[in-house]
Amino acid sequence: MKCDLTKTEEIESMFQKIKEQLGGVDVCVNNAGVDLFLDCKTGSLSDTKTMYELNVFAAITVSQLTIQSIQERNLNDGHIINMSSVCESTVHEDSSCHMYTPTKCALKAFTEGLRHELRKEKTKIRTTMISPGLVDTPQARADMDDNLFCPETCLQPDDVAAAVTFALSAPPCVNVRHICLHAIHDSF
Amino acid sequence: MKCDLTKTEEIESMFQKIKEQLGGVDVCVNNAGVDLFLDCKTGSLSDTKTMYELNVFAAITVSQLTIQSIQERNLNDGHIINMSSVCESTVHEDSSCHMYTPTKCALKAFTEGLRHELRKEKTKIRTTMISPGLVDTPQARADMDDNLFCPETCLQPDDVAAAVTFALSAPPCVNVRHICLHAIHDSF
Amino acid sequence: MKCDLTKTEEIESMFQKIKEQLGGVDVCVNNAGVDLFLDCKTGSLSDTKTMYELNVFAAITVSQLTIQSIQERNLNDGHIINMSSVCESTVHEDSSCHMYTPTKCALKAFTEGLRHELRKEKTKIRTTMISPGLVDTPQARADMDDNLFCPETCLQPDDVAAAVTFALSAPPCVNVRHICLHAIHDSF
Amino acid sequence: MKCDLTKTEEIESMFQKIKEQLGGVDVCVNNAGVDLFLDCKTGSLSDTKTMYELNVFAAITVSQLTIQSIQERNLNDGHIINMSSVCESTVHEDSSCHMYTPTKCALKAFTEGLRHELRKEKTKIRTTMISPGLVDTPQARADMDDNLFCPETCLQPDDVAAAVTFALSAPPCVNVRHICLHAIHDSF
Repeated sequence: MKCDLTKTEEIESMFQKIKEQLGGVDVCVNNAGVDLFLDCKTGSLSDTKTMYELNVFAAITVSQLTIQSIQERNLNDGHIINMSSVCESTVHEDSSCHMYTPTKCALKAFTEGLRHELRKEKTKIRTTMISPGLVDTPQARADMDDNLFCPETCLQPDDVAAAVTFALSAPPCVNVRHICLHAIHDSF
Repeated sequence: MKCDLTKTEEIESMFQKIKEQLGGVDVCVNNAGVDLFLDCKTGSLSDTKTMYELNVFAAITVSQLTIQSIQERNLNDGHIINMSSVCESTVHEDSSCHMYTPTKCALKAFTEGLRHELRKEKTKIRTTMISPGLVDTPQARADMDDNLFCPETCLQPDDVAAAVTFALSAPPCVNVRHICLHAIHDSF
Repeated sequence: MKCDLTKTEEIESMFQKIKEQLGGVDVCVNNAGVDLFLDCKTGSLSDTKTMYELNVFAAITVSQLTIQSIQERNLNDGHIINMSSVCESTVHEDSSCHMYTPTKCALKAFTEGLRHELRKEKTKIRTTMISPGLVDTPQARADMDDNLFCPETCLQPDDVAAAVTFALSAPPCVNVRHICLHAIHDSF
Repeated sequence: MKCDLTKTEEIESMFQKIKEQLGGVDVCVNNAGVDLFLDCKTGSLSDTKTMYELNVFAAITVSQLTIQSIQERNLNDGHIINMSSVCESTVHEDSSCHMYTPTKCALKAFTEGLRHELRKEKTKIRTTMISPGLVDTPQARADMDDNLFCPETCLQPDDVAAAVTFALSAPPCVNVRHICLHAIHDSF
């Protein structure tokens, strides 16, 4: 199912279709994200907003609709997995991710807030944030210098998938709150 | 000078007027901010975006235009003061600020990124983040229960002003990076 | 092999025995730790030091001796896993862990420092910090009220073991830096 | 009054003398600290312990005795100021402070725990942590290369004193929780 995540209507209609075809959504993995390599001093506001649209607002909408879908079926469990980045742990001196990092810090705080709310309600819906380092994806290869992509400096997509699987496959009452992983010689 | 900070054009025209009338901007204090008391689970996206417009995007624009104004006059110093909140240090269990906290975490990371960039350029433009607890303002009184507003639980505007003055009046080579202050019995 | 980890000589002699019998140590899991439930205002210094002896100093010694053992055999990989606690992410209002939390914050910073040093040397020795919430152990049961020990509020030892296994079984160039996990209704 | 802060008995006898001569202690500034420039991989345990003795354990004892002195005179206010370091905010790649940073992280968590406890008791005793960057002191000059000591890269002792004064002179119900300051071109 294709969906432009920067358009709330498309997200809503995707959830509607899933409801009709599959009953609902129990687990979401907010993996989509974009880094436009802006610095804080000169990054244009419109590019900045594009990053927030996808990295923050789309993840909020998908998270909220997933919980709604779980609860309207009177279910008590499910899982929200938000993909952050190793950059959220430290604002790095290297400016290539300076305008991107705040979007991931916002997503982290959102995920934590959501976790507190779900616990207060005594639901068993779990929340996980995964903070990977650089991943060897076609997009990353297009953006960067090819010689960065050795195993010592970047993850493979399977490594991140393994983290998702680890969080999902924990016993139902175990909440894997956070996983940070990166290539052994990643510069973060 | 009045300015709707959620409208980039108004900010730009304000900076233009200041340039014509006063020469330029050396110091900005991004004090405007709004908490619409949304929780993460149900907060509407449009209200959420309103908070990001003022708390994040306006602060970015004002910071960028201030630096531009400093550097187009070939000056080397100036000061960006961004007003965060004590909530950025810990995502609190109390949901009344759950959707607001991520905006302040984003602002913090932006301010840190900017600081690294300004240092790399070897400018002496300083950046400060101030994280106050609850402040006794007309807006806060309108939003909340009156009996919260005793000196033990909330700051006076003057207390925050004193922090701004402290940061501004430090010797030119001293960067007060962060000040967190709150009433002695504030719940954070 | 039994070892009183608060005695450096016993740790050293344990490593000596392992060297003679098995060749050396490639992986250590610094799992031993103690919380004496002291508050910051009144906790005795001697009890406080007991916690640092085990939670910080023993973990430092074991980490250093493991790296030494790896490198004196001209190996390039290995794994240091330090067991922290969910409390390191936020100083909690509940005072029962106030004097314990700083020991885990120290261990976290030590682990991060070590990671930077090992990367600078271009070794492939990995470091992982695991921050579990309350775990249902005989020690914890002895310390606390029995009705805390339902699956919603505390982990089982196997849950923590699964996190260790996940970190260890990642591909050699993947460093799982941090895992935080806790029972779904743990109060942190 | 001279006192070897690594000896608890000397601290206790200093507090006794102050009690006899001046009545008691209302404010303490735990400024003493030592960085022995150890890295995490090879730093000796005995040097490491020396740093904890002064940076952590002495500060704990002085804080506890100050609060005791305040409360045994049935006073309700006072101030504990603990001197941390800018390094506590981020574990830096530069290894010269790797074994020192954890001591300051521990001190920060101790100060936060103490703050929660004092608030729960509804006292008005305030706690402040100050995190300065490199300061131009005789000790620092002895330890380091002379050309580091220009105003752009290090603070003067007066700059830190100004932060202490700012925290102390806030109105009684205002708690300045944290101040981080450093020279404009300090590398943190």
